[in-house]
Amino acid sequence: MTRDPRYDVLFQPVKIGPVTARNRFYQVPHCNGMGRSFPSSMAEMRRTKAEGGWAVICTEEIEIHPSGDHSPWAGGRLWDDSDIPVLAKMCEGIHEFGSLAGAEINHAGQMAANRYSRDVPLAPSHLPVALHDPVQARAMDHEDIRNLRRWHRDAALRAKKAGFDLVYVYAGHQLSTISHFLSPYRNRRSDEYGGSLENRTRLLREILADTKDAVGDTCAVALRFAVDELMGDLGFTSTGEGRDLIEMLAEEPDLWDVNISAWEHDSATSRFKAQGFQDDYVAFVKEVTSKPVVGVGRYTSPDAMVSLINKGRLDMIGAARPSIADPFLPRKIEEGRIEDIRECIGCNICVSGDNHFTPIRCTQNPTMGEEWRKGWHPERIAPRTADETVLIIGAGPAGLEAARALGQRGYHVTLADKAGEAGGRVTLERKLPGLAEWGRVADYRTYQISQMANVDFFPESAMTPDTIAEFDADHVAIATGARWTADGIGRQNPLGIDCADGAQVLTPDDVMTGTVPEGPVVVFDDDHFYMGGVIAEKLRRDGCDVTLVTPAGEVSSWTHNTLDQHAIQKQLLELGVRIITSHNLTAIRAGEADIGCVFTDAPRSISCETAVLVTMRRPVDDLWHARPALTRIGDALGPSTIAAAVYSGHRYARELGAPDEGNVPFRRELINLSPN
Amino acid sequence: MTRDPRYDVLFQPVKIGPVTARNRFYQVPHCNGMGRSFPSSMAEMRRTKAEGGWAVICTEEIEIHPSGDHSPWAGGRLWDDSDIPVLAKMCEGIHEFGSLAGAEINHAGQMAANRYSRDVPLAPSHLPVALHDPVQARAMDHEDIRNLRRWHRDAALRAKKAGFDLVYVYAGHQLSTISHFLSPYRNRRSDEYGGSLENRTRLLREILADTKDAVGDTCAVALRFAVDELMGDLGFTSTGEGRDLIEMLAEEPDLWDVNISAWEHDSATSRFKAQGFQDDYVAFVKEVTSKPVVGVGRYTSPDAMVSLINKGRLDMIGAARPSIADPFLPRKIEEGRIEDIRECIGCNICVSGDNHFTPIRCTQNPTMGEEWRKGWHPERIAPRTADETVLIIGAGPAGLEAARALGQRGYHVTLADKAGEAGGRVTLERKLPGLAEWGRVADYRTYQISQMANVDFFPESAMTPDTIAEFDADHVAIATGARWTADGIGRQNPLGIDCADGAQVLTPDDVMTGTVPEGPVVVFDDDHFYMGGVIAEKLRRDGCDVTLVTPAGEVSSWTHNTLDQHAIQKQLLELGVRIITSHNLTAIRAGEADIGCVFTDAPRSISCETAVLVTMRRPVDDLWHARPALTRIGDALGPSTIAAAVYSGHRYARELGAPDEGNVPFRRELINLSPN
Repeated sequence: MTRDPRYDVLFQPVKIGPVTARNRFYQVPHCNGMGRSFPSSMAEMRRTKAEGGWAVICTEEIEIHPSGDHSPWAGGRLWDDSDIPVLAKMCEGIHEFGSLAGAEINHAGQMAANRYSRDVPLAPSHLPVALHDPVQARAMDHEDIRNLRRWHRDAALRAKKAGFDLVYVYAGHQLSTISHFLSPYRNRRSDEYGGSLENRTRLLREILADTKDAVGDTCAVALRFAVDELMGDLGFTSTGEGRDLIEMLAEEPDLWDVNISAWEHDSATSRFKAQGFQDDYVAFVKEVTSKPVVGVGRYTSPDAMVSLINKGRLDMIGAARPSIADPFLPRKIEEGRIEDIRECIGCNICVSGDNHFTPIRCTQNPTMGEEWRKGWHPERIAPRTADETVLIIGAGPAGLEAARALGQRGYHVTLADKAGEAGGRVTLERKLPGLAEWGRVADYRTYQISQMANVDFFPESAMTPDTIAEFDADHVAIATGARWTADGIGRQNPLGIDCADGAQVLTPDDVMTGTVPEGPVVVFDDDHFYMGGVIAEKLRRDGCDVTLVTPAGEVSSWTHNTLDQHAIQKQLLELGVRIITSHNLTAIRAGEADIGCVFTDAPRSISCETAVLVTMRRPVDDLWHARPALTRIGDALGPSTIAAAVYSGHRYARELGAPDEGNVPFRRELINLSPN
Repeated sequence: MTRDPRYDVLFQPVKIGPVTARNRFYQVPHCNGMGRSFPSSMAEMRRTKAEGGWAVICTEEIEIHPSGDHSPWAGGRLWDDSDIPVLAKMCEGIHEFGSLAGAEINHAGQMAANRYSRDVPLAPSHLPVALHDPVQARAMDHEDIRNLRRWHRDAALRAKKAGFDLVYVYAGHQLSTISHFLSPYRNRRSDEYGGSLENRTRLLREILADTKDAVGDTCAVALRFAVDELMGDLGFTSTGEGRDLIEMLAEEPDLWDVNISAWEHDSATSRFKAQGFQDDYVAFVKEVTSKPVVGVGRYTSPDAMVSLINKGRLDMIGAARPSIADPFLPRKIEEGRIEDIRECIGCNICVSGDNHFTPIRCTQNPTMGEEWRKGWHPERIAPRTADETVLIIGAGPAGLEAARALGQRGYHVTLADKAGEAGGRVTLERKLPGLAEWGRVADYRTYQISQMANVDFFPESAMTPDTIAEFDADHVAIATGARWTADGIGRQNPLGIDCADGAQVLTPDDVMTGTVPEGPVVVFDDDHFYMGGVIAEKLRRDGCDVTLVTPAGEVSSWTHNTLDQHAIQKQLLELGVRIITSHNLTAIRAGEADIGCVFTDAPRSISCETAVLVTMRRPVDDLWHARPALTRIGDALGPSTIAAAVYSGHRYARELGAPDEGNVPFRRELINLSPN
């Protein structure tokens, strides 16, 4: 296939200072939980994106000095020359495909607690570090400022030596000392670095000049800046100082990488923000600078991208999450394969890897983070090892992905589901408030399978042990998912919850399949990811009187890892959901629920006609119990995230017919043991 | 000096199966935040303890298989043979001093979320993992059980190959699959591995036999078991199944390592439990087995240790924290230097390293975790580089440690403090409820200094720029600490809190120095470590009406890292402190305080005659502002923990006269980059 001419504009080269990007696709810096801790994995992940057509590929944050030490977050490091080889390897992989490599060097200041280096954090003014660590950053004096400039310059030179084509000056997200100096609420200085915007910008201006002076002959110098902090007058706004700053420095950098702050706003989930959510904030930037401008907005639609270029909103389409979900997004547009784009669903499970200091994963792209470790390529897969048939029972995320990947390998695949459509849990969950985009997990795979002559999908086809035997496939995978349980067994109540006769108990599955509870409703969230919160939201929107009870200190507490905990709790409160934290649900009786303080066990009763228990799920594995030799995948094996189910299905497809790799079926990254 | 004969019993050898410990000092397994992530650091830390006289030195948990993957917690690994060299290096260092090395191999089951391996966690019955990860462990079938036994056996063989003398079977703390099978509340099986205690013990018995069979010819096999879970009838108790199990298996292992569970009970802080707090639970064990028994209880007193042995309570004195605070504790007893023991203060800052996936640190022992990285030995230090004088102003934790270590180096040290006694912040904080043992930070150093002819301490000696100049020391360090501020500036209110005329505002320093507030009192905790909670506790105990307001979801939320968050919030609630979480303090007026929901900003007023602000501290650095060429250390440089202040003082002492090491003044542990 060939490119649709209306997308030609996306493939124009863009000059960025002394270098030229081969097209307009720009992977902005993003964390990945690998960085220096899993460097071969990180380098191969970035290389794969270059192969996929991204013209510029940036690092995550790279620490420049032990006084800005983000440990245990696994970013990059350029503390000294011993850190160069890891990043040189990344650059090499990117250059192999003619792309440019960008280094986001950064001093994190009071965002870092220096847990490993044990240095005292630095800031424009005395203030506790942003983490809850019992550590304060100290106000920098002029010598500290000179040192910071020197460290930044030295790191820029090391980046150049490693082979980078772009070097960043990072003033965004309130994640850098430079941005703390800019901040009217963090910078309380009375010297020439504090007070007026001009003064607060002094350090940024100096470091920008230092960087251009050090590496600007061969490297482009990019400035990353959040034009709006969504804090009103307390911080930068795109109509106030955010615009003023860009006007002041308009022609200074070789490229403007603009967004909004803080991180949870820049990387808002699809539950709260749609594609293009940053446009109104950054639209002005191209009016005030002649330099190339890159912006983001979770763009996966090439038409939207073209529109942004043609309207003069942006010069380059920035992306982090869309490049994770589909490293080959640019190539697919170039090759006229729009329908093959694996669109980001905006769930932010990718961020959880960074927050857990373990390699990134992606709901849509099961190969993300596995490129080096398992040798998994997002687009290529080994052909089948035999002319065999595979029966997959259940067309949820695991079954769909297994069918798709086995189909790609050339197996004869039959996918059967008792439901009338493919999707499994996604069919239900995509209808929950805010989760519509999650449907892309099913849509992408359903379409891919529909294009494969060797994969057949049979809806409304419940299977039994007998029909499985009759089918006589060479391989059978059970992907029948899991169901939420109503017995209350879970983290807080491993033996279940007392439930009196006549008490009304529902599960999330009941609610999602249309059961309308009697009110008042108590939602008990012992799960802590999105389900408890989103069920409470749905019921409240449906007009119920809802109380959410959770043993945790906050609603949907695990969603801190996907950056939307704050938005979730805010929304529930604004909708009028009552929230009772740090309490267990101990008994359900007719009209009442007994709850107890998780600290003191102090009991209390609350009004409750219906309890919705969000506690745990039970695999739907009757077929496996009937035939234990069959293989379970996805939630039918171990209930987990949709990302885990897709991964499980993909892994099954990869491993079919492959030799057993023993205990550790992946390559590892081990520490160099000191010789002495 | 020579050993006091009453301690002779502590130095008797103990036969443990096929090996013999040279004395009764036994470092039980403990995490350290280094493990496989900082292996050279880990190995040298353990080696140092062998040098210090511990007869048995164990690892932290060692994972045996990717399905029990604790990532990012930095424990050990024996997944395959590539993991052997790290542990072999540890064994080598321990053997150098004639000590025995013990390996706590473990499969963590549902305690691990397998964030890195992405395997489905395993458990006796379906249950969510203990972490809040959206992942469930699946019920193991008989093949899974056979696999687990094989993995354990293989890991035991690898441990033997690495050089270990003891190999563990770990059934404690509810941190192992074996303990989950034992558990009446986690094991809901109906087969021969569930139900009766006999059945629930089956897996433990099988693995014990497997391990003895595999390595028991040359290695002792230790069984670690928590006799009481402090859950009443729901779990094991020392008068119920805890005792029954030990009776059943009495002679099976070569050694019993017994304690209480969960981890926060086993490693209770001194704020809640005194030395010997486990004795009543484990006292029975020696009555029912002839095998050596090791137990713990934060013992630092040799008299208490001797008493335990002589009363037949224990055969070996187990220790984790006391061996961290003083790796040379046994040698000091052996050499008759009881007064030189650096006693653990029970603050659990050591645990925070593990919880942060960064190397362990210790309040009392600033060299902990720095043995390899910086070459710091807990007992030895380089002699002075010149015959020079050092003036240290301020005898808090930083000043005291700097004076002690510089005194050890041979410098002529003068330590001056304006107060009438040494201790600085510790003098105040040790009087807070539960924090008396923290006074050991000052007591140890005050005593050490009192024995040094070259160190003079001058209390009641406030210094000025003029008296400093007159003193004419070769080096001057300012260690004048920090003071809590009353302006409200902090994480939640970077520009401070509105305070009306006539409103009464106090700081923790005011409360600690005796100011009695008018009630009702609002304690605003924007700090999140212990101070907000302990100030609320003190005021409540003093009879005040107290409300604690915090922007966090829980009280003293950072104390999750020191394992006592639950105990703190429970105690406050039981004392009758009102707790308002997820709220900011926005204004203080006469008789009222305005608070706002951190999610919605919804405002509310509460009764408040006095507000105590626990927000941030300001360095007391007037002397430095007058003479910026002087060196600041400890809280006067950057307010932080007591551990950080001691470290800062120690670092100053180590670096005086030493060559500048540039950006990165320590050795690093880098990943082996893949060649391809």
